[in-house]
Amino acid sequence: METTTQFDLIVKMTLSAWDAQNGYLNKLLDELTEEQLMQEISPGRNRGIYLLGHLVAVSDDMLPLLGFVNRLFPALEQAFLTTPDKAGQEMPAIAELKENLAAVNAKLKEHFTATSSAQWLEKHNSVSAEDFAKEPHRNKLNIIISRTNHMANHIGQMLMLK
Amino acid sequence: METTTQFDLIVKMTLSAWDAQNGYLNKLLDELTEEQLMQEISPGRNRGIYLLGHLVAVSDDMLPLLGFVNRLFPALEQAFLTTPDKAGQEMPAIAELKENLAAVNAKLKEHFTATSSAQWLEKHNSVSAEDFAKEPHRNKLNIIISRTNHMANHIGQMLMLK
Repeated sequence: METTTQFDLIVKMTLSAWDAQNGYLNKLLDELTEEQLMQEISPGRNRGIYLLGHLVAVSDDMLPLLGFVNRLFPALEQAFLTTPDKAGQEMPAIAELKENLAAVNAKLKEHFTATSSAQWLEKHNSVSAEDFAKEPHRNKLNIIISRTNHMANHIGQMLMLK
Repeated sequence: METTTQFDLIVKMTLSAWDAQNGYLNKLLDELTEEQLMQEISPGRNRGIYLLGHLVAVSDDMLPLLGFVNRLFPALEQAFLTTPDKAGQEMPAIAELKENLAAVNAKLKEHFTATSSAQWLEKHNSVSAEDFAKEPHRNKLNIIISRTNHMANHIGQMLMLK
């Protein structure tokens, strides 16, 4: 196996892991009722709807972070990133959040497909060129790795709603 | 940047993500009391001690899966992999499980350090040579990716104990 193929293979494995977590999330969302998603994952903790909105907002934020396009749903930031659950903020309905999730994932997929292995190792938009020169691991692919683990963490919590 | 360096960089990023989740787990274990670890993560669900033992057993099982050595604590399989929580099985004390975790991670680290980037793309021990020829992504590094996400999933649940 030549080295370029090895490099491409690992990039593909990393993207497949992201896809797998999104698959688990979508399967779980298909299984949970709206009533279940309005429950807390454990007494006093975040509700399912908040974690759903939080995951949509975090994925949406990857669009500018990876240099693709602006966020599709910037209003989600206030409801699901800067404000904790149950603080009185307005939230979209669950059905709307699910549509947002699908739209964000379709847009991400479109850009992922157009990104070469070498481009995945370019800097993302939250690191300066100066820092990136010293820390080349702070690249776009590392965003995928960290966001995949972030999603796995919250999926583990949302499983409590079943 | 030459291609070999790119390949090495992604391998390093993948191993760093594994280390990061283990760091989160150890930090959480330092913060939780034994009493908290004996609680259920949510009413009727797994207890913290079970998830701890489960994560130790899964990591221990990576030693033979990656072709390094035999499992260090094979008795954990019955208590934490093949038997659900609260089924009457005997379990080691929490302090012992924490020691087991440290021992498993030290052994994994020893072998990780001795594994070259190219070796990470070799087949693991749960796939046949025939299948691996058709599906080269079923390599050792993919075990790290999937086990990192698995750990993140359960850490999300153990955070409920805080």
